Amino acid sequence: MSLKVLTSLALPIMLTSLAATAKEGMYTPEQLPAIAEDLKATGLEISPQQLSDLTGFPMGAIVSLGGCSASFVSDSGLAVTNHHCARGSVQYNSSSENNYLKDGFLAKTHSEELPAAPGTRMWVTVGFSDVTEQVTGGLSDELSGRARYDAIVKNQKAIIAECESEPGYRCSVPAFFDGLEYKLIKQLEIRDVRIAYAPADAIGKYGGDIDNWMWPRHTGDFAFYRAYVGKDGKPADFSKDNVPYQPEHVLTVSAGGLEAGDFVMAAGYPGSTNRYARLVTVDYMFNWLYPTYIDLVTNWINAIEDAAPEGSDARIIYEARLAGLNNFLKNTKGQLAGAKRVGLLDRREARETALEEWLNQEGDAQHYQDAIAELDAVKEKSAAMSKQNFWYNNLTRAQLLSAAQTLYRNAIEKQKPDAEREPGFQTRDDKRLEERMTRLNRRFDATVDKAVWMQFIDMYLAQPDDNRIAAFDTALGLKQDSSKRDIEATLSAMYSNTKLNDADTRLKWLTADPAAFEKSDDPFIELAVALYDTEMHIENESKALEGQEAALQPKYMRAIIDWQKAQGSLAYPDANSTLRVTYGTVLGGSPKDGLVYEPFTRLEGIPEKDTGEAPFDSPTKQLELIDEQKYGPYKLDSINSVPVNFLSDLDSTGGNSGSATLNANAELVGLLFDGTFESVNSDWDFDPKTTRTIHVDTRYMLWVMEYVDGANNLINEMKIAE
Amino acid sequence: MSLKVLTSLALPIMLTSLAATAKEGMYTPEQLPAIAEDLKATGLEISPQQLSDLTGFPMGAIVSLGGCSASFVSDSGLAVTNHHCARGSVQYNSSSENNYLKDGFLAKTHSEELPAAPGTRMWVTVGFSDVTEQVTGGLSDELSGRARYDAIVKNQKAIIAECESEPGYRCSVPAFFDGLEYKLIKQLEIRDVRIAYAPADAIGKYGGDIDNWMWPRHTGDFAFYRAYVGKDGKPADFSKDNVPYQPEHVLTVSAGGLEAGDFVMAAGYPGSTNRYARLVTVDYMFNWLYPTYIDLVTNWINAIEDAAPEGSDARIIYEARLAGLNNFLKNTKGQLAGAKRVGLLDRREARETALEEWLNQEGDAQHYQDAIAELDAVKEKSAAMSKQNFWYNNLTRAQLLSAAQTLYRNAIEKQKPDAEREPGFQTRDDKRLEERMTRLNRRFDATVDKAVWMQFIDMYLAQPDDNRIAAFDTALGLKQDSSKRDIEATLSAMYSNTKLNDADTRLKWLTADPAAFEKSDDPFIELAVALYDTEMHIENESKALEGQEAALQPKYMRAIIDWQKAQGSLAYPDANSTLRVTYGTVLGGSPKDGLVYEPFTRLEGIPEKDTGEAPFDSPTKQLELIDEQKYGPYKLDSINSVPVNFLSDLDSTGGNSGSATLNANAELVGLLFDGTFESVNSDWDFDPKTTRTIHVDTRYMLWVMEYVDGANNLINEMKIAE
Repeated sequence: MSLKVLTSLALPIMLTSLAATAKEGMYTPEQLPAIAEDLKATGLEISPQQLSDLTGFPMGAIVSLGGCSASFVSDSGLAVTNHHCARGSVQYNSSSENNYLKDGFLAKTHSEELPAAPGTRMWVTVGFSDVTEQVTGGLSDELSGRARYDAIVKNQKAIIAECESEPGYRCSVPAFFDGLEYKLIKQLEIRDVRIAYAPADAIGKYGGDIDNWMWPRHTGDFAFYRAYVGKDGKPADFSKDNVPYQPEHVLTVSAGGLEAGDFVMAAGYPGSTNRYARLVTVDYMFNWLYPTYIDLVTNWINAIEDAAPEGSDARIIYEARLAGLNNFLKNTKGQLAGAKRVGLLDRREARETALEEWLNQEGDAQHYQDAIAELDAVKEKSAAMSKQNFWYNNLTRAQLLSAAQTLYRNAIEKQKPDAEREPGFQTRDDKRLEERMTRLNRRFDATVDKAVWMQFIDMYLAQPDDNRIAAFDTALGLKQDSSKRDIEATLSAMYSNTKLNDADTRLKWLTADPAAFEKSDDPFIELAVALYDTEMHIENESKALEGQEAALQPKYMRAIIDWQKAQGSLAYPDANSTLRVTYGTVLGGSPKDGLVYEPFTRLEGIPEKDTGEAPFDSPTKQLELIDEQKYGPYKLDSINSVPVNFLSDLDSTGGNSGSATLNANAELVGLLFDGTFESVNSDWDFDPKTTRTIHVDTRYMLWVMEYVDGANNLINEMKIAE
Repeated sequence: MSLKVLTSLALPIMLTSLAATAKEGMYTPEQLPAIAEDLKATGLEISPQQLSDLTGFPMGAIVSLGGCSASFVSDSGLAVTNHHCARGSVQYNSSSENNYLKDGFLAKTHSEELPAAPGTRMWVTVGFSDVTEQVTGGLSDELSGRARYDAIVKNQKAIIAECESEPGYRCSVPAFFDGLEYKLIKQLEIRDVRIAYAPADAIGKYGGDIDNWMWPRHTGDFAFYRAYVGKDGKPADFSKDNVPYQPEHVLTVSAGGLEAGDFVMAAGYPGSTNRYARLVTVDYMFNWLYPTYIDLVTNWINAIEDAAPEGSDARIIYEARLAGLNNFLKNTKGQLAGAKRVGLLDRREARETALEEWLNQEGDAQHYQDAIAELDAVKEKSAAMSKQNFWYNNLTRAQLLSAAQTLYRNAIEKQKPDAEREPGFQTRDDKRLEERMTRLNRRFDATVDKAVWMQFIDMYLAQPDDNRIAAFDTALGLKQDSSKRDIEATLSAMYSNTKLNDADTRLKWLTADPAAFEKSDDPFIELAVALYDTEMHIENESKALEGQEAALQPKYMRAIIDWQKAQGSLAYPDANSTLRVTYGTVLGGSPKDGLVYEPFTRLEGIPEKDTGEAPFDSPTKQLELIDEQKYGPYKLDSINSVPVNFLSDLDSTGGNSGSATLNANAELVGLLFDGTFESVNSDWDFDPKTTRTIHVDTRYMLWVMEYVDGANNLINEMKIAE
């Protein structure tokens, strides 16, 4: 659960910290040859050069699911990822007769495989090149913030458009080192993805929310997708005639050998980190935004739970949302606790002083210092603006309002030539918009949405006057003395009178022109139209600030990189959902005085936790096998059992879920799926003492497949190394 | 907190389990010579014979506080115990001007010492002898249950009366091995006890309820009382003229030397265990009573918290009660989890089968087998009766009702000659009754008591008809269709019209005769009178069953003892609040797969936990000292810090709080104050894998005294061994 990207609550992208010690570092593959010495010293046996080839072995086997990572493990397109990354697809195919969540799902033949949830994609990286010059090379220092922002987006769009002229590919131009570099990434976009095998929740989600972020852990967090393409080998929509995709590179699965202290590395797509953030941002995040989020999300959860009581149909619809919110809440609390523990603000202050001192010693550093001072001022403004609009912005999270706003924005953008449209509303985005508008029905209940919106409005109204948005107040008729009952009546009328809760209606609006919206009497469309100018105003302010940052941040990062280099270390860019490699060793830890985490958990820990009730309700068959000590070839002698999960000192974050964990020879030894609670603060500051990443061991995966679920067809399909 | 006897919820005393392995065993001192070999092998250096002398060194230094243990550490009556055992006295002396709970309390001279809370006593054992023959020797096998019960109580009272003919002593005749043996224990009763030193809550209660039963732990759970007597050396009421008591034996305090793996033993007064309980009782406890208590206590806590909101005066009054209930709740949940973990019911069944088989092999065992079968039948009845009356019995926990019932019972008992009165209502109990009636005011708030009572009544009404008590229903006018509002109105009227909330009124009732009660129109007195016959009926049934058990249990225990002896082990009697010794080693553990408890915690763990808010709000001075690594002579090299708390494999339970933890030479190395959460089930079944006892290290105690609190006057008074 936890290391999936928190998309629904993605925070404004911020800056970042220093490579301090040990195994900190989410390196881009191309950086690896530069740290070859340490990779070898830590135990890597294949050549670092080989790892740096994104389209070679083994990196070519590592794919993105968007928010999760996966890797190919057979020539027939079989890809392994975390159970929690594929669970939505299991749920999508489940019914009361075929409860695959409860019973697990196993296709014994290709034809039994079921389509993944709508919108599921698999992206295989096929190209990677530097395009910094094309994105920012021609930009004058004199540009205004807004002009710079627009120029960068325009250049990115042009590069993407050219790259995607070949069908079946998805391209992106992410910034690295906060805009110091831009890379063009070209990915094959596989859109026929099917679920081949997922163990029961009682294995794949064992421990549930209780064990989430926790150690000791006993979660069988693995599942298998299969990628399909058209008969011509090209990406295609789902069709019975499609054939399994034949990946160029495939990982060998290890059935043994990993021990405490062994070298491991993980390759995946971490979402975002803030290691180089300036103090002003850190201060805002930890002293305002995170604590505020805790209030907001706690209320949000309560509102959903009240409106969708345990056992209700609505609760089933909102289960995934609740899980996401609870995960976010636990993570945020961990962030705050971790920041306190490591003294984050003091550490940031110390780092800024040290950088400043180093720059003072260097000749010719005034332009860096000026840029940093300016950057801090812009970040200050940005934080103030975020604070100012926070409660209003949350208001628009209500599902029908958000849908109405997206639809109206789409209509307006569609009036422009494709190249000029806002990213997200170009022709290349049409399919996603359609999927989004269709998908809403599976995640929406009017009573719940209304209750959540009411809660958001309540919190908005509790803020000082200057945080109010006139357009919103006017549209909803909110007055100084509006009673809760009045507001609820207004909301109820809106939900009664809207047609936006109907998927076909939403899809129809996708092709309507702005005038149709402006004439509509659908209350949510009316509200979206009424709010449009305000939204644009906020967006413009925000883009202007981002443009200013785009001019300053690369200079700050240049200073950081040079400073680190002077100290003999290689700076790595913050995570940005691109392929990264983190390496280290299998390692327990001591997160707290008096307590030790052992590096491996064992099969016997499962019955120890078992209560017979979810989330600790192992299948009877599994408990019997453990009782009989039927370890088969998967036993690790040093722990006298089959290893279930293990810890490492790798550097990971949300998005790393499903990352292939590889041994020194690049064999698959596990799947990264979580971090310990004491690690979550590593997004801001990597603490080598407490940061530990949690993996499911391939020996447990194979043991479950062979003995519990009889998934021998898949085992036979994979190449297993003893 | 946790190892103080849970007096307010003391469960019906039940039976018990087998000496299985390792360090199970709460031995009476007199048993120690019989296990001399193992004591020596484990590391004891003084003679086991010496330990068996209750009035010699070191046992003579170990005293009871009633519910807690303590030990003398200076020739001037200074006794050390847990902070949580003395906290009531600190609270009693605290005010908003002198907040000793928050700031700690230190008397720099004897004259600054403050009287302990009313009712505080210190009992020094001066005599111990076997009186089994006098208690049960003359009882015919033919006696009815009730007659046997009465005869035993009569004999006990006679022995006690004779023993207490010398003033200043308190005597008791507890049963050992469930009535196989009775001992007369004579104790000097010191009634002028004063508080000499207690660290601030932020040290003595560090971690509070959150850390209660938990490891890793960093609690400075120590405090010092001083015992005073009259100038004649005899116990006396508080007086300025009293002088410090001069104990015959005093412990030396160790300032160093204890290491992981070292021998340790603890001497104290554990309250009760059920190691030999029959399956029928275990089944009742774990499948009915404990789960039911969890419901009851959860509702009870909620009722108090609702009626006494955070920050209210009422909350302060009920703080100790809430802490006790939360402790009980956590303990009970731990019991259930532990029973599940070890498979308690299966283990009991297996033991009963094994005993049965052994008896089958032995010749001439039929009388044992008959007794055991009969015992099971009686226990079955006893469980059924307890179930039947459970909800009604809880009703009478309401404070004013309970007080009224005690007062009326007292009036009735006082009509009889002293020797014939119910224990608890004899002349020797007068002072305690007075104290109890006085003390009520500090722990009572009518609104809260009413809310709790309403909650109890609510749960009572939810039960089937045959669990209803007609006298109660009639007295309160409860009908089939009584609404909650009706009942609340009745209760409100009772609380409005009673005078029992006044301490003087209650004290006056202590000397009133039954007729006065029967004429009274105080609603609680009226209710007590109305319930009296019912209460007597229940009590009579219960005494008859206890009498039957008294004939059978000794036979069962005889069989157990012989069976164990045949297997080469020495059975020890269940805990019964008498002095016991448990021994073993300083030892960490692995309570769960993947997790290890280290044996010591360190000073550095304190700032690691510190949040600045209670219960993690260390004094600034302490944090600074830790930051400076000012360890002084108290550092343990192997952990490179001052040890704060440590774990051992000793066998302990509620009542052991404050027990002296001694090294191989009987020097004080710590104070026992808690067990780990995984240990609480050891009351029923000692699991050597998970049972761990928690101690505060004397090195931390001395470090706090010397560096944080400057309690050098006390350090100088004690004999410190380097």
